[in-house]
Amino acid sequence: MTFIGNKSDLRVVGTRPVRPDGVDKVTGRAVFGADAIMSGQITGKVLRSPHAHARIVSIDASKALKLAGVKAVITAADLPNIASEEAFVGEGPMNFRDLSLNCMARGKALYEGHAVAAVAAMTDAIADAALALIDVKYEVLPHVIDVEEAMAPGAPILHDDLFTAGETPKPTKPSNVAKKVRFTIGDVEAGFKAADVIIERRYTTAPVHQAYIEPHACVAAWAADGQCTVISSSQGHFMIRSYCAKLLGIEISNIRVVPAEIGGGFGGKTLVYLEPLALALSKKAGRPVKMVMTREDVFRATGPTSGAAIEMKVGATKDGKITAAQAVMKYQAGAFPGSPINPGLMCAFAMYDLANVDVLGYDVVSNRPKVAAYRAPGAPMASFAAESTIDDLALKLGMDPIELRMKNAAKQGSKTAYGVTHGVIGYEEVLQAAKAHPHWSAPLGKNQGRGFATGFWFNIGGESTGAVFVNEDGTVNVVSGSPDIGGSRASMVMMAAEVLGIDVEKCRAVIPDTSSVGFTNVTGGSRVTYATGMAVTQAAQAVVEDLKKRAAMIWDISPEAVEWKDGEAVPAGANAGGFDPLPLAAIAMKSAKTGGPIGSEVSVNAQGAGPGFGAHICDIEVDPETGHATILRYTAVQDVGRAIHPGYVEGQIQGGAAQGIGWALNEEYIYNKKGLMDNAGFLDYRIPVASDLPMIEAVMVEVPNTRHPFGVRGVGEVPIVPPMAAVGNAIRGAIGIRMEHLPMSPPRIRAAIDGAKMPKAAE
Amino acid sequence: MTFIGNKSDLRVVGTRPVRPDGVDKVTGRAVFGADAIMSGQITGKVLRSPHAHARIVSIDASKALKLAGVKAVITAADLPNIASEEAFVGEGPMNFRDLSLNCMARGKALYEGHAVAAVAAMTDAIADAALALIDVKYEVLPHVIDVEEAMAPGAPILHDDLFTAGETPKPTKPSNVAKKVRFTIGDVEAGFKAADVIIERRYTTAPVHQAYIEPHACVAAWAADGQCTVISSSQGHFMIRSYCAKLLGIEISNIRVVPAEIGGGFGGKTLVYLEPLALALSKKAGRPVKMVMTREDVFRATGPTSGAAIEMKVGATKDGKITAAQAVMKYQAGAFPGSPINPGLMCAFAMYDLANVDVLGYDVVSNRPKVAAYRAPGAPMASFAAESTIDDLALKLGMDPIELRMKNAAKQGSKTAYGVTHGVIGYEEVLQAAKAHPHWSAPLGKNQGRGFATGFWFNIGGESTGAVFVNEDGTVNVVSGSPDIGGSRASMVMMAAEVLGIDVEKCRAVIPDTSSVGFTNVTGGSRVTYATGMAVTQAAQAVVEDLKKRAAMIWDISPEAVEWKDGEAVPAGANAGGFDPLPLAAIAMKSAKTGGPIGSEVSVNAQGAGPGFGAHICDIEVDPETGHATILRYTAVQDVGRAIHPGYVEGQIQGGAAQGIGWALNEEYIYNKKGLMDNAGFLDYRIPVASDLPMIEAVMVEVPNTRHPFGVRGVGEVPIVPPMAAVGNAIRGAIGIRMEHLPMSPPRIRAAIDGAKMPKAAE
Repeated sequence: MTFIGNKSDLRVVGTRPVRPDGVDKVTGRAVFGADAIMSGQITGKVLRSPHAHARIVSIDASKALKLAGVKAVITAADLPNIASEEAFVGEGPMNFRDLSLNCMARGKALYEGHAVAAVAAMTDAIADAALALIDVKYEVLPHVIDVEEAMAPGAPILHDDLFTAGETPKPTKPSNVAKKVRFTIGDVEAGFKAADVIIERRYTTAPVHQAYIEPHACVAAWAADGQCTVISSSQGHFMIRSYCAKLLGIEISNIRVVPAEIGGGFGGKTLVYLEPLALALSKKAGRPVKMVMTREDVFRATGPTSGAAIEMKVGATKDGKITAAQAVMKYQAGAFPGSPINPGLMCAFAMYDLANVDVLGYDVVSNRPKVAAYRAPGAPMASFAAESTIDDLALKLGMDPIELRMKNAAKQGSKTAYGVTHGVIGYEEVLQAAKAHPHWSAPLGKNQGRGFATGFWFNIGGESTGAVFVNEDGTVNVVSGSPDIGGSRASMVMMAAEVLGIDVEKCRAVIPDTSSVGFTNVTGGSRVTYATGMAVTQAAQAVVEDLKKRAAMIWDISPEAVEWKDGEAVPAGANAGGFDPLPLAAIAMKSAKTGGPIGSEVSVNAQGAGPGFGAHICDIEVDPETGHATILRYTAVQDVGRAIHPGYVEGQIQGGAAQGIGWALNEEYIYNKKGLMDNAGFLDYRIPVASDLPMIEAVMVEVPNTRHPFGVRGVGEVPIVPPMAAVGNAIRGAIGIRMEHLPMSPPRIRAAIDGAKMPKAAE
Repeated sequence: MTFIGNKSDLRVVGTRPVRPDGVDKVTGRAVFGADAIMSGQITGKVLRSPHAHARIVSIDASKALKLAGVKAVITAADLPNIASEEAFVGEGPMNFRDLSLNCMARGKALYEGHAVAAVAAMTDAIADAALALIDVKYEVLPHVIDVEEAMAPGAPILHDDLFTAGETPKPTKPSNVAKKVRFTIGDVEAGFKAADVIIERRYTTAPVHQAYIEPHACVAAWAADGQCTVISSSQGHFMIRSYCAKLLGIEISNIRVVPAEIGGGFGGKTLVYLEPLALALSKKAGRPVKMVMTREDVFRATGPTSGAAIEMKVGATKDGKITAAQAVMKYQAGAFPGSPINPGLMCAFAMYDLANVDVLGYDVVSNRPKVAAYRAPGAPMASFAAESTIDDLALKLGMDPIELRMKNAAKQGSKTAYGVTHGVIGYEEVLQAAKAHPHWSAPLGKNQGRGFATGFWFNIGGESTGAVFVNEDGTVNVVSGSPDIGGSRASMVMMAAEVLGIDVEKCRAVIPDTSSVGFTNVTGGSRVTYATGMAVTQAAQAVVEDLKKRAAMIWDISPEAVEWKDGEAVPAGANAGGFDPLPLAAIAMKSAKTGGPIGSEVSVNAQGAGPGFGAHICDIEVDPETGHATILRYTAVQDVGRAIHPGYVEGQIQGGAAQGIGWALNEEYIYNKKGLMDNAGFLDYRIPVASDLPMIEAVMVEVPNTRHPFGVRGVGEVPIVPPMAAVGNAIRGAIGIRMEHLPMSPPRIRAAIDGAKMPKAAE
């Protein structure tokens, strides 16, 4: 892997060609999960628990099965009883028992919406009628929703066999705390002693949903000989394959998963919900089964990210050197272990070069849907707490918030609490760009405030496959195993075209099914343009080497005497002959005579994903009457390594900021006393709409990642990390009050203003 | 490429595992062309010429377009006017103008059934109504059907710009003779002078259809941004891609062709008929368009193989040494040039080691559907003539027919008239096996005869891509670009399993669309198990090398110290350590930690396909009252090189013999005086049914092809070459009369018997 050219040498990378998936999507031709069809398909539907926590005493499906047109009913009894084990997919950890139980309750329903049975029937209406005919007897159990209540002594226990991991001595009583984890560096006690100023605060954040526009959908067929096909909308068709194989005991080669177009995932489509049920129903019914969630199903039964309770303490000397940082973070996991507590702990202070850090985290189950990844999982809550606290520190020190961060900025060689030493990173460059941006010095009006906050995401690499096939007319298919969520079709063809030296319009991006291309991990962790791009780049480089060999054969000279330049083979050197250059298309036309079709497929496990940093500036005006906060101006600066297609990168930055603003201002799950969700729809669960947002200005800083051929860093997750603190810091500027609880909705802001005006009650 | 093991070393190759496509097909799950669905598809139908030859004066579609539900009408005016050129697909020659004109008549309809317009409409019924509303004005022209009539002076000329190629001096008058071609070796005149016995005869054969069970069908979408998708049943989805690209002016990367399951092709699905029309309709209608032929469409508008008129002359010495062989062969091309006259000339005498051969051939157009390839294209007619003549020679010489062939058998080093010198071939072994078979010496009854005949097919290699992907559970996907017609799924997984040393059940065959795997030529020419098998074998070998490297990494020893044995890595040598063997699945599980997913994709242009030879023995009883011939016993001996899955190879041999028997006894196109086909359906065009055939005994001789890793030779085409002569020779034995015209149907046999009984009229 070599670094390819400086920016000035690049023809394709950094330009903004037409989006390969654009017309497809705006004309409605793109086939999303719910559009997929298999010949002879019937409908599958899920019966869900109406209780937050209940023992399933019995399930009687006999009446449903007698209904004409019902072809199958399944319950957990029809699925393999998966043993608890830290199993591996590829080599990522996953407890398949929990995943299986989350797909279909066995013995106990653990949250409202938990699947307890499923039917397959000829039509939607018959399936609905069948669901109503299934008689489930429940014994309702006490439930717990809140993370700290779930940790409290005497809380209803979800799992009798769950004992806190990471606790010494090993606990003997089951607990809702699945895991306790701690990262430390240096000596925080000594650090706080050295501090002149200490800020200590407690924050809470609400769980928020990824709120992808497309509900989960799939169609699945289990044939008589055990060959299974699934068409599904997901962030990783290989993930669907692996999970279905594990959960249903199928050999992987017997499952073929075809990726449907995906209408948003943001981490929420990295698990299976419907696919194993559709397969099990298909096996029993002998027909392909199609299943599509409603928006209510999505809210009640698929993963949001964790809500959290975070205590934070930061100390600094008078001149702004942070001497110690400490946090205790409690993350909701939902009904099964697995909150993103680890990345939360990792990201809290990774922007800073700190000698003394102590972060302690808890992974806590309660009677909510199992959390799923959500864009930079765990980091936004941690950063909300950290960057709010740092902002208060700047205020107390009377320092410019950017200056304070500059003074403590992580740089190459800085050690993190979780053990990693930063390589070449762009945090300082991002801070400088933010400071230099006109937004930072623009005037503010009445009731207005400006917030600044930064964020970090480590980004990941991992397993990817890319291939480049040269067609006989000189056009090129660029194949990868990564579903395109944020523009990877564009970035793949652009990197391939750059290496091949041809027009990007000659390259077509292709995402085959799982049987037709090498294993590729999920589209997540901001990994695709980095890792899959590395595979594609290497495949394109192998094709160039092959093209040079073919040209050498045609010219009957040594391959070493051939250079590749601007999409053409050129003879070079003293003994190379005076041949006219051979363009790629001319070599392709003769490929049969020089050894056969030209192509290369490369699989990698990419290491060295470069971390990303962002700095957001947010101007807000608060209406003191209503408590409504209006975002007036928003600037998001980010080190993107190298923007392959700047338009998509800007889109990622804008999208992340928009989701962060929703998280900051409005989004939350509202539970009633029975533990049932009161706002399972987009009317009541309020994500930002266009009129809620100004144009978000994305400022790209490019500090190339030295471990990627084009310098790529992941860009998709960083931009959701800073917004909550940026918004909160702006609100503080506007109303003079630190908002410690998300969302900072009008009632909360209004109450804060009222509380500040009134004498404080003793706590 | 190295030869892999002797037969005794093989674990998988040569066994008969369950057919990978079996359950799929018998349970009706397999998706054939007509089963394919695209969301929002509408129906396309073709308006066909009712005349054998007519000028198209005008086409008025205005009424059709006014019909509610009609979305598009196309004529030739909507398709690019392709210039005549010997264009290339991959690197095979094809005149795309002819192909385009065959898909849609431009100016002239050249045969009954020739497409003149097409409609796309919401339903079948609306499309039918629209066809009836299209007003086409024709000027009917004189037509010609028969090959020799078409060659005669004054025959109606189909193409004003067609001049006989291969004629010197270059002709100035257009002709129906598209091409004249001659192969010679030695001096036939001298050879005939040296002969003691000369047999000279004239034969005719009827054109016969491939009679695949599945009519042509496709669904195609042309999106607003020019991205095209076709799902189609064919012998080569890459062929569909290339042809559609050429005929419609689309860049290849903009077309993705998904292979549907194919219900028989036999060469007849190596051309496009519907696909370009469906795409053009889709472009105009803005929706996917589905088109399905009726059986009548298939007969009237798709390619049968050529009917032929053949004069043949063979001379030999008294002791049976053939001194000269000569033939003049006239092959029907249908409405456009392109009969298989070349392979016909090549195959006529290639079984024999002859010093003097002269074969002259003509490619002749007439007002019939354009011929398409049909199993060993051109060879069966040539062999019918040659092997009938040789049989008469044996009779005249009083020699055993096998002995006569043995005496003149081609062997390694024999030169053919067309310039190729045979390598390692198995013709003598085949003759010996036939002679030794109990069938050859079994007694015959009254009115019974035994026929013997042999046949040759050179087989081809060509461009293929194969890939092997190791899944994380140790199962394996074996990918190729070849549609499976005769069992290539089985042969691919078996060769891969053999190389990998694992159970074949762990391997799954996959045939991706054209965008997801490297270019692969059509399934034809008996090339798939040979050429695609070579690509798959090489990919599997590359995977084994990679697995050894991964084991070496896990053990931290040198890769040279690792051997691969029975599916496991084994440390070998003095410094290899005493590690337990690592099975493939264990290495697969750790693949992420040793570099990422394991897989390899290999493209080849395979050379050295080994020729195949067959010898058939046929017992027949002729009912002298009705002239009906009953096949009593049939034995087909063939050199198969190496049978990967003997069950499929036997099936190929049996299927070829069955088709040859139909060709011999019953199949023919019946035209009325207007040049219209009278028997365009399976009731009147009579292919053999089960009750027409005895169990055909397939005897496999294995003379491995030294140029394939497992010794594979093509097996699919050879078995259709000998039957017509074998049947004719048996009938001669039964009734004492040489039948010179195919089919040898009951009326013809009855007439021959009557003619023999009566004094011959002066000719």
